[in-house]
Amino acid sequence: MAKAKTLQKEEPIILITNDDGITAPGIKALTEAVKDLGKVVVVAPDKPQSGMGHAITIGYPLRLTKTETFQDIESYQCSGTPVDCVKLAVDKVLHRKPDICLSGINHGANHSINVIYSGTMSAALEASIESIPSVGLSLLDYSMNADFSGAAYYANLLVKQLLGKKIDKHLCLNVNIPPLKKDELKGLKICRQAYAKYEERFDERSDPNGRKYYWLTGEFLNFDKGKDTDVWALENNYVSVVPVQFDLTNYTLKAKLQKALIHKN
Amino acid sequence: MAKAKTLQKEEPIILITNDDGITAPGIKALTEAVKDLGKVVVVAPDKPQSGMGHAITIGYPLRLTKTETFQDIESYQCSGTPVDCVKLAVDKVLHRKPDICLSGINHGANHSINVIYSGTMSAALEASIESIPSVGLSLLDYSMNADFSGAAYYANLLVKQLLGKKIDKHLCLNVNIPPLKKDELKGLKICRQAYAKYEERFDERSDPNGRKYYWLTGEFLNFDKGKDTDVWALENNYVSVVPVQFDLTNYTLKAKLQKALIHKN
Repeated sequence: MAKAKTLQKEEPIILITNDDGITAPGIKALTEAVKDLGKVVVVAPDKPQSGMGHAITIGYPLRLTKTETFQDIESYQCSGTPVDCVKLAVDKVLHRKPDICLSGINHGANHSINVIYSGTMSAALEASIESIPSVGLSLLDYSMNADFSGAAYYANLLVKQLLGKKIDKHLCLNVNIPPLKKDELKGLKICRQAYAKYEERFDERSDPNGRKYYWLTGEFLNFDKGKDTDVWALENNYVSVVPVQFDLTNYTLKAKLQKALIHKN
Repeated sequence: MAKAKTLQKEEPIILITNDDGITAPGIKALTEAVKDLGKVVVVAPDKPQSGMGHAITIGYPLRLTKTETFQDIESYQCSGTPVDCVKLAVDKVLHRKPDICLSGINHGANHSINVIYSGTMSAALEASIESIPSVGLSLLDYSMNADFSGAAYYANLLVKQLLGKKIDKHLCLNVNIPPLKKDELKGLKICRQAYAKYEERFDERSDPNGRKYYWLTGEFLNFDKGKDTDVWALENNYVSVVPVQFDLTNYTLKAKLQKALIHKN
């Protein structure tokens, strides 16, 4: 008679995506940081998708191709946006919801108002809409040669904790990491999104045929002096953690509008 | 000596954009609906941009071209996303902030979770980030031959009121209109965003070379039985009005996370 097999607890599935594209160093650093915590599967854009926000592809079909980008990690590149990657991963790659979805590590900050424009954070938010706990991670260093070791350490610390407990069905964390060594970082700080914006100035140029074109440039303006914001935390060498939600209702304004508007002539 | 000129109150500037593209019937209906309330200027995408969310164009330059799409209305088409249109309009067309920004009228619903994916609503939200009061309008009819008369009536009713009073610096309204005649509509109803999502199912096909591709399809699931939601209002023939905000912080979860997470090893 065959020996009874020891029932093994199934490994958690960790879905990883990003917006810098599957070949970016940041996503490689993230897979390395968490590969010991579960079965990692990567589904990421086949090209840079920064600033894509919550865009989805509806006018064109998507391509999905298996790649050998990472050692010993199942990976696929997708022709769509970061949000497309999450949707496609659940339906066509994993055929189930992963236990957690990670997005990043982004090359560059996604604190404060950047959360709105960021493909990295939109992928994480999409996962949370689908009841998959998620974390978007961004390092405040745009360089392709950035040092991800501090960010990787905190990615591991966070994911280890989140896999162990059910905090919220729609948990979505916007995590930003200062460009410092692990020992220079003061730890995680739970924050709110700072009130900030970009002041746009388009750079106007002429092409060789004399036709004008415009490059988006702009200056980041932080109006928020609070010490409970992500911008403050980052300036003070903390890893900022902002829980993010997809209910955009402004409840304060809702109450005000009930009285302020004539509802019918 | 010259006669003293009567000082005239300056006309409000109404910036209009959309995500269906500058030639869509919905944006034409919107310009017609409000052209008597101020100076209308249109800056809209040169092609359909549905589902673009809050995407911005950062890897490529933008084109901006004056058009003669509308009778007696200054208009420009832009090669970028709806959010690009708003940014470019302020910096390069108007050279000031408009008094209000309208986006739409969208061909199809943008209630509940659609607010996240919608280029129409992201354009409106972008305006509100820039302290421009804004309204995104969507008709629950995808047809290019849709009847916009009810929607146009309520667009006018809303804009007339909003130009007259300062309700909030960052006012942004997500307005959805049932596909009914004006007299069948019960009036505006101030709502919250319903808790709903899409259950995705990608349609897998093979191209003539045998390579697979995927079309995004999905079923809309409303989990929210509340009578204060936009979905309920629309099902009951009201025009739904949800005030929308760009602070995505989940404050409830923020308080919970302070205790739930180890912040440093």
